[in-house]
Amino acid sequence: MGEFEFLAKLRERLPPDGPQVKLGSGDDAAVTAPAGATATSVDAIVEGVHFRRGEAELRTVGRKALATALSDLAAMGAEAGEAYVVLGAPADLGEEDFLALLDGMLELAAETGTTIAGGDVTRAPALTLAVTVVGHAAAADAFVTRAGAQPGDLLVLTGEIGAAAAGRLLLEHPALAAELPESTARELRRRQLDPMPRLRTGLALAGSGATAMIDLSDGLAADAGHLARAGGVALQIQADSLPLAAGVAEVAAAAGRDPIELAVAGGEDYELLAALPPDRLVPASDASGEAGEAKLTPIGEVVVGEGVEIRLPRGGQLKAAGFDHFAGPERGSQPEARERRGG
Amino acid sequence: MGEFEFLAKLRERLPPDGPQVKLGSGDDAAVTAPAGATATSVDAIVEGVHFRRGEAELRTVGRKALATALSDLAAMGAEAGEAYVVLGAPADLGEEDFLALLDGMLELAAETGTTIAGGDVTRAPALTLAVTVVGHAAAADAFVTRAGAQPGDLLVLTGEIGAAAAGRLLLEHPALAAELPESTARELRRRQLDPMPRLRTGLALAGSGATAMIDLSDGLAADAGHLARAGGVALQIQADSLPLAAGVAEVAAAAGRDPIELAVAGGEDYELLAALPPDRLVPASDASGEAGEAKLTPIGEVVVGEGVEIRLPRGGQLKAAGFDHFAGPERGSQPEARERRGG
Repeated sequence: MGEFEFLAKLRERLPPDGPQVKLGSGDDAAVTAPAGATATSVDAIVEGVHFRRGEAELRTVGRKALATALSDLAAMGAEAGEAYVVLGAPADLGEEDFLALLDGMLELAAETGTTIAGGDVTRAPALTLAVTVVGHAAAADAFVTRAGAQPGDLLVLTGEIGAAAAGRLLLEHPALAAELPESTARELRRRQLDPMPRLRTGLALAGSGATAMIDLSDGLAADAGHLARAGGVALQIQADSLPLAAGVAEVAAAAGRDPIELAVAGGEDYELLAALPPDRLVPASDASGEAGEAKLTPIGEVVVGEGVEIRLPRGGQLKAAGFDHFAGPERGSQPEARERRGG
Repeated sequence: MGEFEFLAKLRERLPPDGPQVKLGSGDDAAVTAPAGATATSVDAIVEGVHFRRGEAELRTVGRKALATALSDLAAMGAEAGEAYVVLGAPADLGEEDFLALLDGMLELAAETGTTIAGGDVTRAPALTLAVTVVGHAAAADAFVTRAGAQPGDLLVLTGEIGAAAAGRLLLEHPALAAELPESTARELRRRQLDPMPRLRTGLALAGSGATAMIDLSDGLAADAGHLARAGGVALQIQADSLPLAAGVAEVAAAAGRDPIELAVAGGEDYELLAALPPDRLVPASDASGEAGEAKLTPIGEVVVGEGVEIRLPRGGQLKAAGFDHFAGPERGSQPEARERRGG
């Protein structure tokens, strides 16, 4: 199926264009008239690197490709706007497969108010989805960057963490689920395969005075490190306040891993980590509650210094190291947080 | 080299951000504040599909990846703005290779006034470059779409065609260059490997009243078909007015191909085909001349009907067929224009 058919199939399935879109896909470019400022991010997933075909339905792969891109917009406090999709299709990807991918993306686009406004399709040796997303805000300074955390700010986390890493372990080693209720195991796998971008919560946090924000793609340890570095501050996180998802402790135990280490080193939770002044905690919690996506949990604070300390209840700490996408075959599967006992 | 290093290398090499960019790469998203309307297009090239490593320097591959995306903006009459780059890097792509790709993109970005504002890097089985570009205009209706051609309009073409297809033949069959001056052969290969987007000419045409415009990526026959279909009109092109690049006739003869067929079926010239009212021809030619990129040649006219006729001097015609990216292993190497002799 060529580009023309791709775009035709896309258009057949598209809901009406979003309010910013003046001309949708099918011309040389899509035309928009942004009312204020835009935030643009691009994210790619590649078969054999970020996912394996057969592990998830292609519908879910399509959802995840868009979800991981939109998560970056959530972390800016942006309103979702448009998406532009590059599909690299191997020769064995049939029309039904293609439509499943597309339907997954369109489904999540509808759920998040995103308009798929353009795309390109090409042959590629491995299934590749590169998604550019554009989000909107009234003005450039309404976006929340990684850089604004101030000493004295609280650190808050949306939802629960560790689920995606535990789900990854269950997909690779199904026997680890032996002691888990099937519904818990299913939910952990779903959190790995089909994450939801926290767009409404990101907007709520931005509107409540968050000073810095990032989404957890590389894992809390690594992403907190990005926030610390961008802000020129240190982050202190209390390990015993971390909201671990149900089943993470059991999967970690079955795998002989420390549950905290699994949760902070494992990537792909796509929750948001935000810094905010202490007097903004209650308004932010209320606004997040109204957003209805995920609970907000205070997990630590911003202090003068550099780096990230994850303080363990037993008195030691995890020292966070950076995560390198090239370090391993799978994003998030090669945790690099090294444990350093001290203190 | 991971994403962090990629972005660090990118930032080291970047000129100051363009006027629209409020926050460049390195955060979750790049922030811009577009003054008017934006045109966004995305284009991907994949090793083994669109290019072969070894055939061109990686610097040139980087240039072409950006050039083909910018060409879509040229075809809208947009001012180049920002680019977002996904690099899928195979394991054997070393740091020097990576920097060569990057320098090629940055070089063309500087030449065209484009800001590379973000990117993502990932492992991939084949070298993949997906580029999203955003162009600007004062208002949405300042862009020229494919759809506005009116019966009575003239068709004009920028520059010369057939060079990229002849260059492709020379790359695949070097012996075909036996009778050509080396400088001509070199120029044909260059036009295949390192095309220049006609951004200034596109702006000049848009400003001079072009009613419809498209860039020649799939070949004149196929792209004229897109313009005809989008406008609900027919296009009549006089084959003997087509500006063939120097050496195209000789390469076609050596390959046993018809030079007109080679020029209209071969893709990747990245010239612009525009429709404009007859009284706009002189102003458009003057403005294009001032843009200094490429001459404008009238090649036919828009009439009531559908489809594209390419009228041959000997009385027959070429009937244009669509081009399918999936039809062959190489974009532009599997011409699909079928010759139909008739009255």
